[in-house]
Amino acid sequence: MTETTARPARELKVAVIGAHGRMGSEAVRAVEAAHGLSLVAAHGSGDDLGDLGGADVAVELTVPAASPGNVAHCVARGVHVVVGTTGWDEARLETLRAQVADAPAAVTGGAVGVLIAPNFAVGALLMMSFAAKAAPFFESVEVIELHHPGKVDAPSGTAARTAAMIGRARDEAGCDAVPDATTHDPDGARGARVDGIPVHSVRLRGLTAHQEVLLGNAGEMLTLRHDSFDRGSFMPGVLAAVRAVADHPGVTVGLEHYLGLA
Amino acid sequence: MTETTARPARELKVAVIGAHGRMGSEAVRAVEAAHGLSLVAAHGSGDDLGDLGGADVAVELTVPAASPGNVAHCVARGVHVVVGTTGWDEARLETLRAQVADAPAAVTGGAVGVLIAPNFAVGALLMMSFAAKAAPFFESVEVIELHHPGKVDAPSGTAARTAAMIGRARDEAGCDAVPDATTHDPDGARGARVDGIPVHSVRLRGLTAHQEVLLGNAGEMLTLRHDSFDRGSFMPGVLAAVRAVADHPGVTVGLEHYLGLA
Amino acid sequence: MTETTARPARELKVAVIGAHGRMGSEAVRAVEAAHGLSLVAAHGSGDDLGDLGGADVAVELTVPAASPGNVAHCVARGVHVVVGTTGWDEARLETLRAQVADAPAAVTGGAVGVLIAPNFAVGALLMMSFAAKAAPFFESVEVIELHHPGKVDAPSGTAARTAAMIGRARDEAGCDAVPDATTHDPDGARGARVDGIPVHSVRLRGLTAHQEVLLGNAGEMLTLRHDSFDRGSFMPGVLAAVRAVADHPGVTVGLEHYLGLA
Amino acid sequence: MTETTARPARELKVAVIGAHGRMGSEAVRAVEAAHGLSLVAAHGSGDDLGDLGGADVAVELTVPAASPGNVAHCVARGVHVVVGTTGWDEARLETLRAQVADAPAAVTGGAVGVLIAPNFAVGALLMMSFAAKAAPFFESVEVIELHHPGKVDAPSGTAARTAAMIGRARDEAGCDAVPDATTHDPDGARGARVDGIPVHSVRLRGLTAHQEVLLGNAGEMLTLRHDSFDRGSFMPGVLAAVRAVADHPGVTVGLEHYLGLA
Repeated sequence: MTETTARPARELKVAVIGAHGRMGSEAVRAVEAAHGLSLVAAHGSGDDLGDLGGADVAVELTVPAASPGNVAHCVARGVHVVVGTTGWDEARLETLRAQVADAPAAVTGGAVGVLIAPNFAVGALLMMSFAAKAAPFFESVEVIELHHPGKVDAPSGTAARTAAMIGRARDEAGCDAVPDATTHDPDGARGARVDGIPVHSVRLRGLTAHQEVLLGNAGEMLTLRHDSFDRGSFMPGVLAAVRAVADHPGVTVGLEHYLGLA
Repeated sequence: MTETTARPARELKVAVIGAHGRMGSEAVRAVEAAHGLSLVAAHGSGDDLGDLGGADVAVELTVPAASPGNVAHCVARGVHVVVGTTGWDEARLETLRAQVADAPAAVTGGAVGVLIAPNFAVGALLMMSFAAKAAPFFESVEVIELHHPGKVDAPSGTAARTAAMIGRARDEAGCDAVPDATTHDPDGARGARVDGIPVHSVRLRGLTAHQEVLLGNAGEMLTLRHDSFDRGSFMPGVLAAVRAVADHPGVTVGLEHYLGLA
Repeated sequence: MTETTARPARELKVAVIGAHGRMGSEAVRAVEAAHGLSLVAAHGSGDDLGDLGGADVAVELTVPAASPGNVAHCVARGVHVVVGTTGWDEARLETLRAQVADAPAAVTGGAVGVLIAPNFAVGALLMMSFAAKAAPFFESVEVIELHHPGKVDAPSGTAARTAAMIGRARDEAGCDAVPDATTHDPDGARGARVDGIPVHSVRLRGLTAHQEVLLGNAGEMLTLRHDSFDRGSFMPGVLAAVRAVADHPGVTVGLEHYLGLA
Repeated sequence: MTETTARPARELKVAVIGAHGRMGSEAVRAVEAAHGLSLVAAHGSGDDLGDLGGADVAVELTVPAASPGNVAHCVARGVHVVVGTTGWDEARLETLRAQVADAPAAVTGGAVGVLIAPNFAVGALLMMSFAAKAAPFFESVEVIELHHPGKVDAPSGTAARTAAMIGRARDEAGCDAVPDATTHDPDGARGARVDGIPVHSVRLRGLTAHQEVLLGNAGEMLTLRHDSFDRGSFMPGVLAAVRAVADHPGVTVGLEHYLGLA
């Protein structure tokens, strides 16, 4: 029989690990509603993962202490993994790369793929990628991040990463430091410097997670802004990762590499 | 003969003191181009003011060291004054009020009027007035000011005054402090606090003078923003002050009192 | 929402009519959580209202067909009413005013008060009030409203009311029409005109209800923006109305009259 | 503008044609102030161009009627040309390509290069490039352009080009049409459609040339905005083109091709 569409011959089977957390329960709903994906297991934290319900791909959304063990369990069974849990430092990544190198073939065929994704918001990834690309063309760059007033750390992790990406892009292009004639700022209104880039943190009731990158030249300004209104904004990125992970064998850090943004 | 329009019977005669400075030369051009105003004198700093060319109203745009002497000279001759020079602290105002009380009748009739105006930008005055009015209705308020990178002080004077007006309005209404759970901010990304209100200063090539007041409640945000693209934005306020000063005898601080905004 | 008066000696007793609808169920939760308010009845639509649980104030959030009967029931028993239901045209208001004039004394003492409120979002009311106040000071004014793509009408009711308020304020101040040299606009990019003010409607997935008023003079722009992220943003206005209605005898249309904004 | 290559061994000699126009006089000043460039000729329109002062590169900023002749004169002498004049349709480009193919070697060595650049604002080019790249990742996209009220056509050429680039990118990616439930829009508040993308034109005193691209998904929005405050914003792009044209033999349309944005 001839296939006439691009639709895969069978559905991808997906397991969610950490299915009762805030992100995990959103992921369960998103997988159930998605074309071409089939939810085969929803594990709470601490559950025995067993054979993961025969999954092709696992989505791992737990806590830093549990994540490496969960991912190793999947990899050892040839199950691809999309990881949204934080805490993956270089030592953990090194161990994971060795585990993946020793893993059996993936249940989908080919080699096992693992994505470690600090951020699934496609819009935020685009903003960061564009900021790094644009920064060498401008004299001035500053970052403003705005969050709800319950956030305990400043600046946000996304703002710090954005500033680091901007700083590196400007260094590689041989840019001068951003101009700043400030000599009198007794209360610190000029904010933080991250890799030479000024970063400002606003905390406001009603907001969720927002960021603006301002780039200025004589006579012009370019503004890149991302607004994340609720956690639902992460799910298109999670689904895109689930669909693409089998095509990216080995360990990848950052969803931007799947999206052609890096 | 019957007058059929509201146009005054004769033109107002205007002198500009500090006519060769940046603001002063703009004021000369603006007075020359305005309906109902006639430029009769344009004094450089250090010029002998003499009889001010027979002016009804003087516009004083010089430097803090010269301003009190210039204004006293005008007041003693019954000439109304619109003052844009900075440095008028309470001691100077006290002296000025005594001079005005002892002054002869104004050349236009009635008592002499003096306006001390830290800011002539009508849009900026509206922003500040609206910010103070709105602030008690919101849990959170923050101020972001953005200027060219040649500015030496942070925050701007306008931002500091805005925050002070907001802080006072909230105190009078019995508002709680703005919510802020920040416990970790090693580099000062949360900016300055002025009268309890967070203030952030951005410096960017291409910008002139801009300010945003963000007000947040659960589920909503109100944003008040003023952009000043060039000094021309001050002239409508200067002209409005020149036309109104004779109707406001005594010493007034702030153009907002002439515009019904205070 | 700030409480600007001393705490009342006893709690206000509140009934919610239409307690199972989207707005009504939010109101039930908000009253239960509020200082100084006590929920004494939560009626579904069609319930017999009876003595309203002995309420001092009723919040009426039903449908246009039921609202006049519910309000009349309350007024006849001396219970103040805060009404968020739409459909109150002039004929209905006329009937209501007669009912209020004939009503017994309020259970709280004094005369009965009724508020008909088309919009409880305090931030939106502030934006509209500020737009009307600022508009005569500027040459140019335009309105941009932005909503979710499921909205069927354009422009939004709030945008049309804002433009009407701006148009009236400019007419009363004798302003010229907004400047516009457009001679070639084959596809209607310049948007709608409402009372002479250009209005633009954006529809975008991810948005809820947002509006921007842009005001321009030579060299400056003032921007007033309101973002409504969810229905929770209406509750501070509902609670403010409940607390204030007993101090406003008779029929009032528009929460802005309680807030000193009109 | 950043210099990303080593400083050339000798200065580039530059002629400006159309040196007394608004753009041309800015270009003269910019070349004189730039590192590594030396102004060797400044021709008014109608001047005999002669040997162009021995220039390596000419900047052509005249009028559509004169531009092809000027460019042909340069090409025939092996002088590279950066062209900011409009009116270069496909027929003119075809003729130019033939002239370049027959030209002698460039005075700098290698083959002659010509850049036809409809837009030198680097920030605007970045905005357009980013908009096209991001558009396939979002359900909704709309464009708002804002200009001074003396502009006669709507939408702006930049907005129309941006919408066309977005429309093409979405078609190639197989995106659905943008969602829009509007059924009632009697006055055209929804604006124009260009290649399926809604475009809105604002005209406001105080503005110069500004554009915003709004991209929306469930729960998130990405905003790309470019503000052009004055013509000075074009000069970094002109200088970048002058420095790069010798490395791009043949005819190139669009500065984005020199900047790695296309």
